[in-house]
Amino acid sequence: MYVDLVQPLLSGQEVVATGMMGELQRCQLAIDRALAGAKVALVSSGDVGVYGMAGLALEICRERGIRLGPLSGGPDIDLPLEVIPGVPALAAAAALLGAPLMHDFVSISLSDLLTPWEIITKRVEAAAAADFVIVIYNPKSKKRDWQLGTVQEMILKHRGAETPVGIVSRAMREGQEVTITSLTEMHQHPVDMQTIIIIGNSQTYAAGGYMITPRGYLNKYDLDD
Amino acid sequence: MYVDLVQPLLSGQEVVATGMMGELQRCQLAIDRALAGAKVALVSSGDVGVYGMAGLALEICRERGIRLGPLSGGPDIDLPLEVIPGVPALAAAAALLGAPLMHDFVSISLSDLLTPWEIITKRVEAAAAADFVIVIYNPKSKKRDWQLGTVQEMILKHRGAETPVGIVSRAMREGQEVTITSLTEMHQHPVDMQTIIIIGNSQTYAAGGYMITPRGYLNKYDLDD
Repeated sequence: MYVDLVQPLLSGQEVVATGMMGELQRCQLAIDRALAGAKVALVSSGDVGVYGMAGLALEICRERGIRLGPLSGGPDIDLPLEVIPGVPALAAAAALLGAPLMHDFVSISLSDLLTPWEIITKRVEAAAAADFVIVIYNPKSKKRDWQLGTVQEMILKHRGAETPVGIVSRAMREGQEVTITSLTEMHQHPVDMQTIIIIGNSQTYAAGGYMITPRGYLNKYDLDD
Repeated sequence: MYVDLVQPLLSGQEVVATGMMGELQRCQLAIDRALAGAKVALVSSGDVGVYGMAGLALEICRERGIRLGPLSGGPDIDLPLEVIPGVPALAAAAALLGAPLMHDFVSISLSDLLTPWEIITKRVEAAAAADFVIVIYNPKSKKRDWQLGTVQEMILKHRGAETPVGIVSRAMREGQEVTITSLTEMHQHPVDMQTIIIIGNSQTYAAGGYMITPRGYLNKYDLDD
């Protein structure tokens, strides 16, 4: 999929696609090519630094004893490396919804592949109680379909039934879907691993097709002024 | 400052800079120009959707009864509008530090101009207790210099003294500064309103000049594999 997405940007570069191979192998391959002298771009979707490949690449280099450093180089560097930030999926989703991230927010992945479910629920509970806007990554997969309902019930103990919820799938890609619904209705919309869900805080409102979180609690700025 | 930053992108457009005027007036002016028929870009730094101008623009239009809609238009729309996402300061800072945002994180602004301090501390406490990586915006201003020390003390009750902390000022701009330090030492580094601070979770480590948060808690992927 990523190769298709970057196709318009290619101009003769060699493309190494790993097909069904995992992230780990893809990372190792990129590092091996770079060590062999090639200028390599390891491509992630969204921002490589938010649940992306940046951490894995750095961890593998550390494990292999490869000393990394800036592109400007230096005597103690085996491999020059630059992490290039991008537009995270949460920012793309927020832009399509209006302005839901104007105030403090959390980002939580519901994938329990690498994180115990107790830690995930502890975070959801903490975020709901402290009135954070809540961004959810990986809400559901083929093998994992019950977590989102549990999370919804947890948050409903702290927020009103009508709290706005934005659901964005395939943000700014083919097949994009954008929905604004409520906390009680959110489970009725289809979601998958390419979906970002944004649950408003106590001040968030939906109006005119947009989801808006005000910048503060004090109304210190007067819009009529 | 923003006008200077976008200077290389300009090619004859009219530039309306409001000097010392506030955000509210700048927003109103942009909306007035757009209503008068001009194609207007309201420029923010970082991502306009994260503590940016997107919310204010939408709130003002709502207050003024201006019906917004997509660029493709429609009979019920007074003003077509598109929110264009960007690279948030937290993503730029993370890229410069390595990979601190590989796992769940919160974003908290310490500015108490529009948010009561009790809400801010409640969020810091919740985030620290639930082992989120913590991103801090607006850590300090000229008139507000004590909050960061209080936050540090609160987090130290939940995390080790050696927890890595990344401090990035003016990310990817002139005067950029990048520091990796520890939770106990963080207050010794200069910070201002253009600084992002990222405090690691219990798994975050600093190595080889980078700050890395592993993707999970279970070590399900074996780097030697």
